[in-house]
Amino acid sequence: MLKNIRIVLVNTSHPGNIGSAARAMKTMGLTTLYLVAPKLFPHPKAVEMATGAADILEKAIIVSDLKEAISDCGLVVGTSARSRTIPWPMLSPRQCAEKVLPEAAASQVAILFGREQSGLTNDELHCCHFHLQIPCDSSYTSLNVAAAVQVIAYELHMASLLEQTKEEWDYPCATAGEMQGFYEHLERVLIAIDFLNPNVPRQLMTRLKRLFNRARPDAMEMNILRGILAAIDKKTILGKL
Amino acid sequence: MLKNIRIVLVNTSHPGNIGSAARAMKTMGLTTLYLVAPKLFPHPKAVEMATGAADILEKAIIVSDLKEAISDCGLVVGTSARSRTIPWPMLSPRQCAEKVLPEAAASQVAILFGREQSGLTNDELHCCHFHLQIPCDSSYTSLNVAAAVQVIAYELHMASLLEQTKEEWDYPCATAGEMQGFYEHLERVLIAIDFLNPNVPRQLMTRLKRLFNRARPDAMEMNILRGILAAIDKKTILGKL
Repeated sequence: MLKNIRIVLVNTSHPGNIGSAARAMKTMGLTTLYLVAPKLFPHPKAVEMATGAADILEKAIIVSDLKEAISDCGLVVGTSARSRTIPWPMLSPRQCAEKVLPEAAASQVAILFGREQSGLTNDELHCCHFHLQIPCDSSYTSLNVAAAVQVIAYELHMASLLEQTKEEWDYPCATAGEMQGFYEHLERVLIAIDFLNPNVPRQLMTRLKRLFNRARPDAMEMNILRGILAAIDKKTILGKL
Repeated sequence: MLKNIRIVLVNTSHPGNIGSAARAMKTMGLTTLYLVAPKLFPHPKAVEMATGAADILEKAIIVSDLKEAISDCGLVVGTSARSRTIPWPMLSPRQCAEKVLPEAAASQVAILFGREQSGLTNDELHCCHFHLQIPCDSSYTSLNVAAAVQVIAYELHMASLLEQTKEEWDYPCATAGEMQGFYEHLERVLIAIDFLNPNVPRQLMTRLKRLFNRARPDAMEMNILRGILAAIDKKTILGKL
């Protein structure tokens, strides 16, 4: 899936940063680099900083306008250091990776990084479905552009490793409908065993929903939970006979 | 807690990397830098690459031997690109952050980064309690040293943000002892309601433990779960009368 994710560097001033970004990408398995109107490229400093990732630079696609870099993309995410006047859907690097990876299975995804001094313009940010902010210490937020690429590429790589683990999980996640059915059954049982007073429910169901939503039961675990509730039902009815 | 975590760069060749590492640290709230026998330092290239993080360089402590950099540390973690002949406890960046942050509340922690070409020596790695490996794409694992600092500093910063969120959680995590007591109670109840056959237990308790361990119940949630089991106990005994 990483092969459908492109890194787009917009109007980069220093060729060394382009080289460092290419190296950052390659260490994390990303290979497609778009350069929108780079100030100095190709440039020996870029090759020097890329070290073993010079192939990423050779294959880099240079365009004059951002639109050319993203026109075939189904999802566009733009890095942004500050919050905007009009709030935009905002992702952390980890959320971005979780969002981007499944989408990249079906369509092309672009992640945009702006100028060293001023980032992306408002017009460029308005081309994005999501904005992406790397959490920084409030006293100093000036992340180098290649360092930002490194962090995002790292999160994408981590998410892809996690994705591989998920595929090895034995059962799929329970659906939202199954979770809903479980909560309704659980509530009936808790009333039947006199643990939940329907007239004074307090925060009981809320707390239980928060707990089970955190665990994200798989389909087999959901079967077990429903089976336990059914077994209690049976006992409770017998007890009432 | 981040203030008790020091970054130790061992025998760095390029002053630019020291500057970039300082910048990476400062963006993520780390401030203490030790330099063990740097090849060229102080150096204008370091200041240039540090940009707004020159204060980290000015405060950097230069020592001639690794031991001087770590002698007062309660926990020492060393980055390592490859697995060693004698296996050592190994952490991912995320595990490292989870491990380091609570320890840093009580003692000094050092995270070591080796030479650009050859990393840390075996002797240096043997000074470490844990080794730390940043997962890289198998085709190219040559992470720049400042990029490695950026990834680790980012994970530490993320963990410190998460730590702040945890403090806002209403109850502390259930202890391992409480979890154990819950599983024993759950097993007795499942037998009593004829859901678990103790002669043919299959994977039932294993699956339930995996589920509840994933959710990591807090103390209040644990009270609720035990309360539900006690209510079922009551009904089951009444049913048997």
